[in-house]
Amino acid sequence: MIVSALLTSVGINLGLCILFFTLFSILRKQPGNVRVYAPRLFAEGKHQTGNHFNLDRLLPSAGWVKRAWDTSEDDLLASTGLDAVVFMRIFIFSLRVFCVAGAIGVFVLLPVNFLGHELDFSTIPNESLDLFSISNIKNGSKRLWIHFCAAYFLTGAVCYFLYFEYKYISSKRLAYFYSLKPQPHNFTILVRGIPVAAGSSFSESVESFFMEYHSSTYLSHSVVRQTSKLRGLINDAENMSRRLIRLKSRPKNQQKNLRNGFLGIFGQNVNIVDHYEKKFEDLQANVRIEQSDASSLGEEVGAAFVCFKSRYGAAISSSIQQSVNPTQWVTEQAPEPHDVYWPFFSIRFMHRWISKFVVFVASVFLTIIFVIPVLFVQGLTNLEQLETIFPYLKGLLTITFVSQVVTGYLPSLVLHLFLSVVPPIMKFFSTMQGYISHSEIEKSACSKMLLFTIWNVFFANVLTGSISSQIEIFVEPKNIPSTLAVAVPAQASFFIAYVVTSGWTSLSSELTRTMSLIGDFIGRHCLRCMNSEFHAPSIPYHSDIPKILFFQLLGITYFILAPLILPFLLVYFSLGYIIYRNQLLNIYVPKFETGGKFWPIVHNSTIFSLILMHAIAIGIFGLKKLPLASSLIVPLPVLTLLFNEYCRKRFLPIFRAYSAEALIKKDRENQNDPTMPEFYNRLVTAYHDPALMPIEYSSNSDEHTSPLLSSARV
Amino acid sequence: MIVSALLTSVGINLGLCILFFTLFSILRKQPGNVRVYAPRLFAEGKHQTGNHFNLDRLLPSAGWVKRAWDTSEDDLLASTGLDAVVFMRIFIFSLRVFCVAGAIGVFVLLPVNFLGHELDFSTIPNESLDLFSISNIKNGSKRLWIHFCAAYFLTGAVCYFLYFEYKYISSKRLAYFYSLKPQPHNFTILVRGIPVAAGSSFSESVESFFMEYHSSTYLSHSVVRQTSKLRGLINDAENMSRRLIRLKSRPKNQQKNLRNGFLGIFGQNVNIVDHYEKKFEDLQANVRIEQSDASSLGEEVGAAFVCFKSRYGAAISSSIQQSVNPTQWVTEQAPEPHDVYWPFFSIRFMHRWISKFVVFVASVFLTIIFVIPVLFVQGLTNLEQLETIFPYLKGLLTITFVSQVVTGYLPSLVLHLFLSVVPPIMKFFSTMQGYISHSEIEKSACSKMLLFTIWNVFFANVLTGSISSQIEIFVEPKNIPSTLAVAVPAQASFFIAYVVTSGWTSLSSELTRTMSLIGDFIGRHCLRCMNSEFHAPSIPYHSDIPKILFFQLLGITYFILAPLILPFLLVYFSLGYIIYRNQLLNIYVPKFETGGKFWPIVHNSTIFSLILMHAIAIGIFGLKKLPLASSLIVPLPVLTLLFNEYCRKRFLPIFRAYSAEALIKKDRENQNDPTMPEFYNRLVTAYHDPALMPIEYSSNSDEHTSPLLSSARV
Repeated sequence: MIVSALLTSVGINLGLCILFFTLFSILRKQPGNVRVYAPRLFAEGKHQTGNHFNLDRLLPSAGWVKRAWDTSEDDLLASTGLDAVVFMRIFIFSLRVFCVAGAIGVFVLLPVNFLGHELDFSTIPNESLDLFSISNIKNGSKRLWIHFCAAYFLTGAVCYFLYFEYKYISSKRLAYFYSLKPQPHNFTILVRGIPVAAGSSFSESVESFFMEYHSSTYLSHSVVRQTSKLRGLINDAENMSRRLIRLKSRPKNQQKNLRNGFLGIFGQNVNIVDHYEKKFEDLQANVRIEQSDASSLGEEVGAAFVCFKSRYGAAISSSIQQSVNPTQWVTEQAPEPHDVYWPFFSIRFMHRWISKFVVFVASVFLTIIFVIPVLFVQGLTNLEQLETIFPYLKGLLTITFVSQVVTGYLPSLVLHLFLSVVPPIMKFFSTMQGYISHSEIEKSACSKMLLFTIWNVFFANVLTGSISSQIEIFVEPKNIPSTLAVAVPAQASFFIAYVVTSGWTSLSSELTRTMSLIGDFIGRHCLRCMNSEFHAPSIPYHSDIPKILFFQLLGITYFILAPLILPFLLVYFSLGYIIYRNQLLNIYVPKFETGGKFWPIVHNSTIFSLILMHAIAIGIFGLKKLPLASSLIVPLPVLTLLFNEYCRKRFLPIFRAYSAEALIKKDRENQNDPTMPEFYNRLVTAYHDPALMPIEYSSNSDEHTSPLLSSARV
Repeated sequence: MIVSALLTSVGINLGLCILFFTLFSILRKQPGNVRVYAPRLFAEGKHQTGNHFNLDRLLPSAGWVKRAWDTSEDDLLASTGLDAVVFMRIFIFSLRVFCVAGAIGVFVLLPVNFLGHELDFSTIPNESLDLFSISNIKNGSKRLWIHFCAAYFLTGAVCYFLYFEYKYISSKRLAYFYSLKPQPHNFTILVRGIPVAAGSSFSESVESFFMEYHSSTYLSHSVVRQTSKLRGLINDAENMSRRLIRLKSRPKNQQKNLRNGFLGIFGQNVNIVDHYEKKFEDLQANVRIEQSDASSLGEEVGAAFVCFKSRYGAAISSSIQQSVNPTQWVTEQAPEPHDVYWPFFSIRFMHRWISKFVVFVASVFLTIIFVIPVLFVQGLTNLEQLETIFPYLKGLLTITFVSQVVTGYLPSLVLHLFLSVVPPIMKFFSTMQGYISHSEIEKSACSKMLLFTIWNVFFANVLTGSISSQIEIFVEPKNIPSTLAVAVPAQASFFIAYVVTSGWTSLSSELTRTMSLIGDFIGRHCLRCMNSEFHAPSIPYHSDIPKILFFQLLGITYFILAPLILPFLLVYFSLGYIIYRNQLLNIYVPKFETGGKFWPIVHNSTIFSLILMHAIAIGIFGLKKLPLASSLIVPLPVLTLLFNEYCRKRFLPIFRAYSAEALIKKDRENQNDPTMPEFYNRLVTAYHDPALMPIEYSSNSDEHTSPLLSSARV
């Protein structure tokens, strides 16, 4: 790719970004869009309702930037929770790393590369991007030692920032724990594999076991019940209720009649609203019967939430093997009450085993096979192939501008579109894998997506060719550096373009929320049914974190190869910082609180990026006939891994469980708290399956939230 | 190899075995050999001292067999501990497996193979061992389905026995725990990474932390001290004491004089005994000064043994992360007091990290490089090579008997000799790796030896050729079955001979304890110094368990290939059962008690053998043009691994720690025990470094045990 193509791409995207920003700053001021641009405030009832028109509403302004910038981290923590703060720390961390890397890259490496004069100007265009990359340095040149030092320096800087960040987030996590009011999930454990004696129930078994061995701290328990059938009925009832509300909101004369017989063709002619109302009542009655059945006699699952009087008591029970038989009385810390993924409990043990295995195979398969359609479609976007397939485009493609758009823009757009389908699939996979909470599902999907992205975007693009040839490089580990050293620099310009197109564009579409905007518009103006219910969205960590981490990986791996990528990344992270702050404050509602458990994923991914960078550096110095530098890089990955090992020892346990010291301190704090009896009362009922809660459908009211959610949030 | 060569080998070894057995049954009756053949009884003072001569003493008898056979498992448990019982269970398990395998192998597979008629009798000698192996079956023959069924059947049988055995040993372990009197190590944890405030000591820090957070169960603690210098001095003093005893035991006129100056050449002429006595007194004084130094001011290490009032209290503290900072207050269950490896505590943290890394590299290096000298020496034992190197042996080597000895016997003898050097090296490696107890060191050395043996004896012999070609097969996992399918059957006759030579011979030399016998003889008759001290040996688990497990691996992998190996293995395990029972009862003194923690190693090794057998079966059926059978074998390893996963969940936690249920039950049992106060008193002083104990050398007495040992056993 030559510089002008890159500039075209940058120009287009810059234009798009500005357009999106302008659109956003106008659209967000329209009162009708408050559900799109401030759903969080809307759901909390905090949005300003001023419908009067003034000119200011039509002028773009940057007030939102100031507001997002001004909010302090403590305010962010208070309003969005620790997970959102940790999410923002990814940007802060990346900005720090790439400020350092960018300064060295642009002011040291770039000039060194440019003055390298290795490349023959007669064969390549004068303005090729390769002029700015390490390819332009002569073999065996002493200048390569500058790159060598840069690799050491960057690794040191990244490790320093990583350590600092891990420490900071650990302290935040502890401070958050210390600042919390008593939370049900700190006092509760989940027990599985409850054995049951003949003639006794699960409930009696739990009661007697914990009274026997944990009498001083045991408080109460609630046995989990099989509710899959009930949940189906409730879903049907909800759908019906929604349909009824829609029908009723229509004018009377538009309400059609319907025959009540077979397929609505035969039978009596009845009013459609009456018909559905009758059906809805039947459903409701069914739900009530099922509920009373399930909670009185219904199938208990061999699992229970057991509540304790103290956090330390719960922690002891969850960390020590309870029974002589390790498959019985299996304990673990309970998730937050509204974070519990109830359908999980309806699945039988064998079923879970099998689905775990199937999910594993399916994710590996998806990750490896995905590349085939992508490569095929990307192949189509090559100029020559396009011309052979669509000969009538020949005229169009000879125009410089068009051809530059096609080479610089289309391939990464195609990739981007394909990639957007995957996160929901991965989340679905994780759902089937048997996690007991939404947060665990999201974390697992996040890891899956990260591996998927690194494999399919990085390696699939770098190691073009058949899948088997790609896998081959991992089978012969000693060839990895040299293979990567050849393949990675060749793709530098593609990835620079990728940052600009995929990165910048995805940020601005995140800001304008195009899909939600269109959906909301259609809903309001065509279907007129959107008033019926409203959920503020929650941030999709599993798709957003891997995306950001991937750009970090690109920055670190291309740091010594093609430092030109760094300024574009800096722009990406700066934009991202402002935009996501705005989104967190106005749009996303936290669905759960893990207390920063996503950070270890970020840490591991960064360590992987560093090791990958080292592997490529070893290969590059070998290729450039500087074997001494190549072997002197080898200690770097070893030191990095030792650093990682240290961090695992020093910080990771903090993210797994709270220490005895912290738990006992908190317990002592609450010992004389007069509100504790009331908390214990709430605790006893905190872990009840929402499907077993009494339902109320106000099928006439317009303001109505889902019964499932409303009860889960109690 | 042809049948006659095998028979020669069997004949020689059978002769040797009978010779050894006869020798043993005579020698063990000589009162002078009581230290060799009943050191355990001797140390416990239980041996019969009848010095009167009778004819019976010169006649071989099999009374010891009957005694070893008659002892019940409960008696064995009472007299040798659970580890020894678990060790014997390896033989019982193997006997069960190979009775089933042998029955199928000899009565089904062997006839099927023999009637296969694939091999061309004109090219190979009529009596080749290959006649009895799967090589004799025609390609694509329907008879191979018999082998297929046998593979499934054996896997099922082995898994059944494994499950049964794991369950049995788990129950034994629990029963053992329930039957125990209060043991110090159940009430104690080891704490490392003790932080210390300025102006305070480790001891104060420990006291205040555990009084703060575990006030209800905390009993006492003892801080570990740096004693490497002291230990050196004590060693010197011990050596000196031993030398003095030896000198004094000589007649007066043989005691030489010595000049007390430089190198014993210059200076005054003094009596040698007086000279050493003076030196010895100086040393003793030094030791006392150091001891008082170390225990009063001396360098404390940031580690302490903390004792609790209940087992459950200790278990809670050891399983929950104590401090907010995970690198501080790191806790783990303490080993038995006499099992603690004290020198470990003298090593600094960084030193430990580095030595861990070095040990890892060294063991891998040793495991991989070891094969080179072995292959070289084994190459020498080939007939042709021998003839070229030693041309004058040509005449000798043409004699059929000699050539058969050379081909059938020498290669495995060479291997055997080389292998006997490795266990001490591996144990030394494990010692440096930073384990806190002798039992952990032995367990780690056992795993290292197992990997070493499997790699160097099995794979190095199977995959002859360069090391790189050996490693290559692991780099391309999909080629493993086909490579093994070609290579493994080719070595069938070597391994049959190996079982007979190495297996049988090592058993009979274990019985007669040739080295100890010679050592004892020399000591008594030449040096006259053996009376000074006497330690009964302890069983070297780290060298014996891998040896036995390797024969198991051979049996399982060659089951469908060359079932002829099975009868020889049955003989090996039967002999081993009797011989090791005798040894455990009469010779070895248990040095520690892990409560059966060696069994998981046995389980894992057996699972590995099964998977290896499946891999070979997949390859063999592919090679024999029966692709359907080849693919139908694939579910077998998957099922085996699932079975293993189940066992890991079901049984492994029992071997890691005791459950809350068991601990609380035991604690309640002791609640009203009147002997507990006395036990607590002993507990407080149980974990004192033996180097800090007062020493007493009775340099005149003949009956004298090592001060290190005597104090450690308190």
